[in-house]
Amino acid sequence: MSTNKFIHVVDTTLRDGSHAVSHQFTPEQVTAIAGGLDAAGVEYIEISHGDGLAGSSYNYGWSAVSEKELLKAASKVIKNGKLTVLLLPGIGTVEDLKMAADCGAKVVRVATHVTEADIGEQHIGMAKKLGMMAVGFLMMCHMAPPEKVVEQAKLFESYGADYINIADSAGAMLPEDVKARVGAVVEAVKVPVGFHAHNNLTMATANALAAVEAGATFLDGACRGLGAGAGNAQTEALVGVLDKLGYRTGVDFYKVMDVAEEIVEPIMHRPQVVRNAPLMLGYAGVYSSFLLHTYRAAEKFNLDPRDILVELGRRRMVGGQEDMIVDVAYQLAQKRGGN
Amino acid sequence: MSTNKFIHVVDTTLRDGSHAVSHQFTPEQVTAIAGGLDAAGVEYIEISHGDGLAGSSYNYGWSAVSEKELLKAASKVIKNGKLTVLLLPGIGTVEDLKMAADCGAKVVRVATHVTEADIGEQHIGMAKKLGMMAVGFLMMCHMAPPEKVVEQAKLFESYGADYINIADSAGAMLPEDVKARVGAVVEAVKVPVGFHAHNNLTMATANALAAVEAGATFLDGACRGLGAGAGNAQTEALVGVLDKLGYRTGVDFYKVMDVAEEIVEPIMHRPQVVRNAPLMLGYAGVYSSFLLHTYRAAEKFNLDPRDILVELGRRRMVGGQEDMIVDVAYQLAQKRGGN
Repeated sequence: MSTNKFIHVVDTTLRDGSHAVSHQFTPEQVTAIAGGLDAAGVEYIEISHGDGLAGSSYNYGWSAVSEKELLKAASKVIKNGKLTVLLLPGIGTVEDLKMAADCGAKVVRVATHVTEADIGEQHIGMAKKLGMMAVGFLMMCHMAPPEKVVEQAKLFESYGADYINIADSAGAMLPEDVKARVGAVVEAVKVPVGFHAHNNLTMATANALAAVEAGATFLDGACRGLGAGAGNAQTEALVGVLDKLGYRTGVDFYKVMDVAEEIVEPIMHRPQVVRNAPLMLGYAGVYSSFLLHTYRAAEKFNLDPRDILVELGRRRMVGGQEDMIVDVAYQLAQKRGGN
Repeated sequence: MSTNKFIHVVDTTLRDGSHAVSHQFTPEQVTAIAGGLDAAGVEYIEISHGDGLAGSSYNYGWSAVSEKELLKAASKVIKNGKLTVLLLPGIGTVEDLKMAADCGAKVVRVATHVTEADIGEQHIGMAKKLGMMAVGFLMMCHMAPPEKVVEQAKLFESYGADYINIADSAGAMLPEDVKARVGAVVEAVKVPVGFHAHNNLTMATANALAAVEAGATFLDGACRGLGAGAGNAQTEALVGVLDKLGYRTGVDFYKVMDVAEEIVEPIMHRPQVVRNAPLMLGYAGVYSSFLLHTYRAAEKFNLDPRDILVELGRRRMVGGQEDMIVDVAYQLAQKRGGN
């Protein structure tokens, strides 16, 4: 296992972690965290609303402070790392991307559903025009078979993406699922491949390692795992484990764990533990936006919401189909009545 | 990966979890948790002081309620599972074992340091005489190479142990370490093999799965991971993941997660998150009893305690050698001074 391979660490505490603090990061917190991560040697420091640039809204939750202000705060303290932003086409626009570049962003990760890379073409193109590094970020990859993930990764590559990131957004994958998808993409594209884990099944770090074993060279993490639902791979644990296995990351293990405990932990709203709701989402393989609708439907039809989630996962329902949850619940209730 | 193999689940919420509540479990809590686990189909329900039978003491922390009382409370509500106790020779005695048997314990796990199985011979023998199932439980297995673990496992087997449990007490192993040790023992003994994970490196569930891949058929877990330091594999997540992979456990996933969230979580003193201290212990591969001594020595010699822990791990120091920590710190300080 021992190797001297370099793994690029992307810390998303200030982006995915934004969900876990209801998008209330302040410029002071951003300065402390981004500065700490930079001093610890973290190469990519991602900062955006949890749902990407311009996510601040009634639908996705208002940020306490404008992205512009937060990006500028980060930019001032990032000396060696690269200020990174996330952009979901449909939420963020090329105008938002220009704003981020003006504020010092060097990298943009353009995130689409695993079957919709095509909606990211213009954003990748604009990033390259702006002289930025551009990343094709495929969300909810557990929902598509490896060949579909490959097809979409190749699209992103054809648009000019500098690397492809495979995301297990629902935390539904197990190591074999990760290896199948990451391995297939590594084979199929010429650019590097990364992986974004969620901890719903308590497998985030293990899945990140599986990605590396399959050839990934970029890994996402967040200090203390801060992120939506069950959170991400803990950056500090990921660095420690990679270090133990002989990989190089350029990250100082002691320094990054100090950032986690001394700066991030005190501002967390709740500990990042795997409670039943995220565990069930990972088990069923459905996204967290389904949860509230599922609880309502379960109450209406006197069902266990977990049975609905499993059925939604089985049907591979995606975000935007929330209004179909009631139909699914109705059908389950009918089926139960008929037994 | 899909398989129909049966994995026996051993829940240690009421034993290893005892550490995490400073041994303050009440008969009411034991009744609720043991009853819930039993109703969920958990096969082995371990209840003892965190340091095993008779652990209640000045050295290891006083229990709120006598083991006898707790075991009797559990015995009343366990209908299908097997009431299990832990015994560390040197702390617990054959008399304690008789008491436990009288209270309804059906299984004893006799736990020794990975190189000291011989001190468990009489306890295994007595368990068999009492008609109990007896388990040889090897602690701190990361400290010994596979061939040493095999040698000690064979000793336990020769004493009459019904299965051998490999424990990663410091949470220092990674999946390849687990596979090497569990796989070697599975090859060498005729009895089944189990694995006890700790989550210091956020790898508990993944390591448990690695054990199964190497042939283990018994796995330890604790609801919400409740246990010493970073805690154990979360029983409810472990069951969900095994279920997803097609293993059978006989445990109802929904019911066991309800026990975790509705009964165990409300009585926890703190969330079972991986903070820096347990992360460092797992990284260095040293036991938690070293921590306080290390902090003191670090202060005395103006060192980073983490450097001392790494050195202690490198020297493979074991429990009982705490007084040598100051010597190690002195040497590190000298070395630093000389540079």
